Amino acid sequence: MTVLQSFRARTGEPLGAPLVASTPQQIDAAVQAAAEAFEGWQSSDGATRGALLRALAQALEGDREALVALADDETALGTVRLNGELDRTAFQLRRFADIAERGVPFAWLDDPAVPGAPPAGHPAMARVQVPLGPVAMFSASNFPFAFSVPGGDTASALAAGCSLVIKAHAGHPLTSQRVHGLMQQVLQALRLPAGLIGMVQGGGNEVGTQLIRHPLIAAGAFTGSTRGGAALQAEANARPRPIPFYGELGSINPVVALPGILAAKGAELAATLAGSISLGCGQFCTSPGVIVVLDDPASDTFVAALSTALAGQNPHAMLTTGMRRAFEAGAKALVAAGARPLVNDLSDGPAPRPFLAQVDAATFIERAALHDEVFGPAALVVRATSVAQAVQVLQAVGGSLTVTLWGVEHDSAEARSLVRGATAIAGRVLFAGVPTGVAVTAAQQHGGPWPSSTQPMTTSVGDAALNRFLRPVALQDAPVWLTARQGQPC
Amino acid sequence: MTVLQSFRARTGEPLGAPLVASTPQQIDAAVQAAAEAFEGWQSSDGATRGALLRALAQALEGDREALVALADDETALGTVRLNGELDRTAFQLRRFADIAERGVPFAWLDDPAVPGAPPAGHPAMARVQVPLGPVAMFSASNFPFAFSVPGGDTASALAAGCSLVIKAHAGHPLTSQRVHGLMQQVLQALRLPAGLIGMVQGGGNEVGTQLIRHPLIAAGAFTGSTRGGAALQAEANARPRPIPFYGELGSINPVVALPGILAAKGAELAATLAGSISLGCGQFCTSPGVIVVLDDPASDTFVAALSTALAGQNPHAMLTTGMRRAFEAGAKALVAAGARPLVNDLSDGPAPRPFLAQVDAATFIERAALHDEVFGPAALVVRATSVAQAVQVLQAVGGSLTVTLWGVEHDSAEARSLVRGATAIAGRVLFAGVPTGVAVTAAQQHGGPWPSSTQPMTTSVGDAALNRFLRPVALQDAPVWLTARQGQPC
Repeated sequence: MTVLQSFRARTGEPLGAPLVASTPQQIDAAVQAAAEAFEGWQSSDGATRGALLRALAQALEGDREALVALADDETALGTVRLNGELDRTAFQLRRFADIAERGVPFAWLDDPAVPGAPPAGHPAMARVQVPLGPVAMFSASNFPFAFSVPGGDTASALAAGCSLVIKAHAGHPLTSQRVHGLMQQVLQALRLPAGLIGMVQGGGNEVGTQLIRHPLIAAGAFTGSTRGGAALQAEANARPRPIPFYGELGSINPVVALPGILAAKGAELAATLAGSISLGCGQFCTSPGVIVVLDDPASDTFVAALSTALAGQNPHAMLTTGMRRAFEAGAKALVAAGARPLVNDLSDGPAPRPFLAQVDAATFIERAALHDEVFGPAALVVRATSVAQAVQVLQAVGGSLTVTLWGVEHDSAEARSLVRGATAIAGRVLFAGVPTGVAVTAAQQHGGPWPSSTQPMTTSVGDAALNRFLRPVALQDAPVWLTARQGQPC
Repeated sequence: MTVLQSFRARTGEPLGAPLVASTPQQIDAAVQAAAEAFEGWQSSDGATRGALLRALAQALEGDREALVALADDETALGTVRLNGELDRTAFQLRRFADIAERGVPFAWLDDPAVPGAPPAGHPAMARVQVPLGPVAMFSASNFPFAFSVPGGDTASALAAGCSLVIKAHAGHPLTSQRVHGLMQQVLQALRLPAGLIGMVQGGGNEVGTQLIRHPLIAAGAFTGSTRGGAALQAEANARPRPIPFYGELGSINPVVALPGILAAKGAELAATLAGSISLGCGQFCTSPGVIVVLDDPASDTFVAALSTALAGQNPHAMLTTGMRRAFEAGAKALVAAGARPLVNDLSDGPAPRPFLAQVDAATFIERAALHDEVFGPAALVVRATSVAQAVQVLQAVGGSLTVTLWGVEHDSAEARSLVRGATAIAGRVLFAGVPTGVAVTAAQQHGGPWPSSTQPMTTSVGDAALNRFLRPVALQDAPVWLTARQGQPC
């Protein structure tokens, strides 16, 4: 019997008694129950879905104090951050409730018959959206609420008409169990089947692998490392029937800072950037990991100010001791690959010190080891000789959740080439501010080319996240009884 | 030096001199040229894209007589069908010209800033669509125009702002070369770079494999067998940077025919279905391969009429001798797996005889060998004891481009369960007529769950085909010079 242990993130001490990982029989039962729950949920109307999502938001808020305290103990993310994350999670649930109630993603595209021979003539067609089925959802370590049991994947899948089996993250098992218990109470109060939101737990890879392999699972949704996501995607593809797998993975989020804006307000930007690099101990998928500057005195001043500001940051403890070790190994790997340390005050203990290094663009472009994400408060300054070379740096990065461009306020050939270079590799391009903080809104795109996600046409944050769980179907010559049901799947 | 030979499909005799397959150097040069052409084409306006697509349609029509004669010699599809296919191909090109000119797929979603703290407050966002880059396009054997060099993938990728390197199909190399020559003349007349529409040729897997592995290729689009598509998808996933791969693969297209409608007009439906099974010698991805009937006297009469009607069909020669051999092997495999032949007049020569067999639903559900597509004029009657078992047959099929439901004109619990069962596995559900013939229109969905396609959320036919080649990007706090360019990528 595999066991699973919660730890206090600040001290590494065990928290509570050991838990038992889900058995193969329990995983199968959870998926079977989710498949049974899907039968009814796929045909539910927007009001029913909205009511569930709003009740889930309310249940989270109602247990706020205990949830935040428990999550803080398990993750060391701090109560300010965790209260904000809980707010965001409730906001997401209510936003998808709105969307389900308004029904726009489920609208039918009517395409009436055109008489005559093909290609111009055609039968009556309607393009509709059907929910995929039971979704295997893999929680993240770094967002115990917003990208975990009650998070964006859960909210968007439920709004789409899918049921779920959630793999809780082993980094916060007690928080996951408490949240899942609240969600089960809501299901019971609304007389909805318990299987609509199943949960399984486990420390290693076995539970997740068995879950994504289950024949009744129709899609996977994952937030975590590129390595973990790639392994699960390979499992999804190796099934007798491959299924869509939405992995939101690692990212190094380049920031390109041009000399003009650095001359004008480099000190302010250095302070902002240092805060972004060390925010949440750098444990964000949008944490800026590469800072591209041009050879220029303003860049020198900026890098010096950034070094000073970063050295003054005091990141909190990391989520797990494994991540703490991986951070140190990652920083050392950058140095081994040729980066010169600028801030390198390595320390023992669960809270790491920030790390900053520097390398020239030609070396960066050439060495793949310099493109690896270092999860934690680390960044690499890359010095380019020209805007053209800065674009080549972006091409070498290849895929990222975000690219930030500082200094392209005015139109020019160079500005356009940077915008093209940024949009070519990123899901979100920022022209001010820092990439940490991902707004839950209509236009958001959180997902870019590999290695930042497995399906770059989709987003895991924002309104379009719901579309991941719907599949278009064309109805040809549909009977009246069916077309009269528009907006509500059969 | 690898050679490639065209054959006359009706006789198997060589047609013309041997051709030389593209060398690794030529493939690399074609991709490099496509990447250079993409630099400009990604920023082209709708009028420019529309002008190219319309000129390509006109060029095809202008060379109609010679093209159809050559394609008929290489494929044996017949001049009536090939003239219709050329019309359809020109129609598709002009339809995507319309779409590019109107610009709807490129419209920006504006999401103005909301003041205040997150989660409700957020910066100004805009959701835009950017073309992916050079596309590797793999032509089909069975549509020498509409799913080949000048086909739907080409039209939709060009309209989206992508360049292409097309892998011509070895089943019709001379037609491919002639069409590509015409397209090159159009590019020259419009002063567009030759590399915008590159072409490579080869008989084995090497050329296609090298093409999809090329680091500058941004996406793949394929129409063909499940086996070939799965191999190329595995290559796309195994790249250091995986890319989207849109494979439109094999499908067995179940038709469910209920006793009521068979009693009313079974004879007419049998004749229509026999024509659909043998149309184009069954060489359509939408060819009906499984006919589900319930145990009922009306079903018996229908199956007898279908057998008679199918035995009276005279399919033309198959596209290649390899496909001819595969058809016979596939029919024999169904018998070996337990199907009882009803029409089994196997013959020698390039034109096969139609094949029909029958099996009970329980055996069909249990034996995966009975779910394999037999490409050619073949179908399998599956006898179910109830509507519930017919739904289980659909679940066993698992994924299909189409499902056809005959006899659900009226609302009932059984009708709903069939509609749910059909939409769960298919991209298109028909309530009348036969699945062969795929309208090029706004609501079309040509692509369903595995094994019918690799990306069931996308379509290779219809207006939404263009979306496969665009990727959403969120612009955050974009400067005025950029937002003023709405609808035209930077």
